[in-house]
Amino acid sequence: MSDSPILLTPGPLTTAIETRRAMLRDWGSRDPAFIALTAELRQRLLAVAGGEGSHVAVPLQGSGTFIVEAAIATLVGPGDKLLVLVNGAYGERMVTIAQRMGRAVEAIRWAEDEVVESGRVAAALRADPSITHVALVHCETTTGILNPMPEIASVVAGEGRAFLLDAMSSFGALEIDLRTTPVTAVLASSNKCLEGVPGLGFALVRPEALERAAGNSPSLSFDLHAQWKGFEKDGQWRFTPPVQVVAALVEALRRLDAEGGPEGRRRRYQGNFATLLAGMRRLGFDLFLDEAVQAPIIATFRMPADGTLVFRDFYDALADRGFLIYPGKLTKAESFRIGCIGALDRRDFERLLHAIEGTLARLEAV
Amino acid sequence: MSDSPILLTPGPLTTAIETRRAMLRDWGSRDPAFIALTAELRQRLLAVAGGEGSHVAVPLQGSGTFIVEAAIATLVGPGDKLLVLVNGAYGERMVTIAQRMGRAVEAIRWAEDEVVESGRVAAALRADPSITHVALVHCETTTGILNPMPEIASVVAGEGRAFLLDAMSSFGALEIDLRTTPVTAVLASSNKCLEGVPGLGFALVRPEALERAAGNSPSLSFDLHAQWKGFEKDGQWRFTPPVQVVAALVEALRRLDAEGGPEGRRRRYQGNFATLLAGMRRLGFDLFLDEAVQAPIIATFRMPADGTLVFRDFYDALADRGFLIYPGKLTKAESFRIGCIGALDRRDFERLLHAIEGTLARLEAV
Ligand SMILES: Cc1ncc(COP(=O)(O)O)c(C=O)c1O
Ligand SMILES: Cc1ncc(COP(=O)(O)O)c(C=O)c1O
Repeated sequence: MSDSPILLTPGPLTTAIETRRAMLRDWGSRDPAFIALTAELRQRLLAVAGGEGSHVAVPLQGSGTFIVEAAIATLVGPGDKLLVLVNGAYGERMVTIAQRMGRAVEAIRWAEDEVVESGRVAAALRADPSITHVALVHCETTTGILNPMPEIASVVAGEGRAFLLDAMSSFGALEIDLRTTPVTAVLASSNKCLEGVPGLGFALVRPEALERAAGNSPSLSFDLHAQWKGFEKDGQWRFTPPVQVVAALVEALRRLDAEGGPEGRRRRYQGNFATLLAGMRRLGFDLFLDEAVQAPIIATFRMPADGTLVFRDFYDALADRGFLIYPGKLTKAESFRIGCIGALDRRDFERLLHAIEGTLARLEAV
Repeated sequence: MSDSPILLTPGPLTTAIETRRAMLRDWGSRDPAFIALTAELRQRLLAVAGGEGSHVAVPLQGSGTFIVEAAIATLVGPGDKLLVLVNGAYGERMVTIAQRMGRAVEAIRWAEDEVVESGRVAAALRADPSITHVALVHCETTTGILNPMPEIASVVAGEGRAFLLDAMSSFGALEIDLRTTPVTAVLASSNKCLEGVPGLGFALVRPEALERAAGNSPSLSFDLHAQWKGFEKDGQWRFTPPVQVVAALVEALRRLDAEGGPEGRRRRYQGNFATLLAGMRRLGFDLFLDEAVQAPIIATFRMPADGTLVFRDFYDALADRGFLIYPGKLTKAESFRIGCIGALDRRDFERLLHAIEGTLARLEAV
């Protein structure tokens, strides 16, 4: 649609018009055609991470937070203990979720610009055998930092604990290979690197872990064991599915395939990020993170220290030019974020940089 | 879309193409344009039930079951007790939800073809002062029965208890007047009589009840107090909203207005139902319910007693002609259901009847 803005956000983001067009029809949720679409969805989600031989895909209605909550509610039993590795807001959110539902939970915390470090994790697991589950955010969207996931996964598996991975902002673009990396459950949603529309989360889970978790969840809706058994029984959703969101996601997954899977997508995002970073540096902006730990997903830039730039003015001026940037989420420094994901390429980022340059000139002239 | 089937289902149902077209654009979830859309959504939802002066609208991501669970989790505190009035599967589901989350809950049960009767409710409330909340399903979609909601509401209010109404399959078509009927919270979703697409539930709740419920919910996602406070703070959703589903629902609400509100919509559905019932009787089918208690929302028909008709064959033959009917959900009798709701009018039902007649002739001929 010509009136859609360009979204430089971590999702909802810019989707392909073909993906949105997949929402133009109605579906009966119990009709064979929709049952087949659901089966294709579940199969394609597994294939993205090579989980066909080891995991099952359990989609769930709602936002990304809902699938994270459902995974904790289902997999972390009343007698278990969860350790969350925190270096940003989404790690903190997992701690809050577990606390609210009365599950035993502890956290190890790092600064927002530091990656989670496996040595401390190994030591914590050895010191506390009552920890049964460890949770990590793959790419912390708070800053855009990439945690060393495979290394943490193998430390956790080596200590014999279950590993929950919030891959919300990495799934579909950053490598997650379930054939070689021991992960109990990968959690993500429709509207980030998969480039679908929002309204759906999903878990790729080891069926043995789900079987053991029967009856664990204190929530009927957030029971991934029951949700899975529902799909296995007759291919249908337990409760009304967002049929158009499902259709859009299946179309988006076909497009991911056509792009060469996560590796092809990562290359495009890497190009977006490189274009953005070079241009922003040229315009005098500093990247918040050390480039070595930065994922090509979302970039956090510091607001100029001289205080001349006000986020609201900067945002509005760019919005007038059709570009929507994203507020910062750092606990300390003043910042803003620019997403590199969505149906965008280098040329969109060149146009964005041009718009930023024009905006800065105009705001300075005022 | 020409390739959309005609859905004779209780939702997802047939929507207007204009409603689906509202999903063709992308929205930034924190952009002023989407904040304005959310404000319009919340205002229009209240207006449907005349709740502007007394209630607040709290939309929630996910299916209808999610908003029911969130309302129970938030409003029924750990020291409270819920009484559910059950005459079908959705009443039973509320009992299950409360039990799973460890809330005190009791049920009074009626047969599936009998309405909830206020005398027994009054007696139960007088006998047990520890009951703090009463829940009722307005139209039990299991059968299509219409419970005498205003009468139950005033008995509950008269006894000084809070009243939760699952209006999933009635909201937008059957009268709910919050100016004259004492209801603490009305719960419904986007994809039934409002004729939006699925992916969103909402509660219209008295703000005093929400204020008292702060911190009650054991679930971060299903915390309607926090969800409400989020909207009040900056007009934004706490967690990623299904932006296209929201846009479709706002379009659908504008169309409801243009049709003359719930009264206009009820008239159309009543016409659909009358056409359907007359035609089905002509073809030899019996309505499961007594017509006096039947809502013009979804009709349950008994399968012919001679066992000649097999649901699967009947369904497939009608699907081939572009009509999707719905399976029965009765605990005892063999049945099927035909929804009267969605963007359909009498002529669609005449065509359906014609297709049913042709199908029966063909199936008999085999
Ligand atoms: C890493 C991560 N986890 C969880 C979430 C929560 O997802 P949602 O906003 O869809 O609830 C997000 C959303 O940005 C995220 O980036
Ligand atoms: C009365 C009633 N309550 C609750 C629900 C549950 O809604 P959902 O299927 O969207 O979870 C339905 C769905 O048909 C319903 O008719």
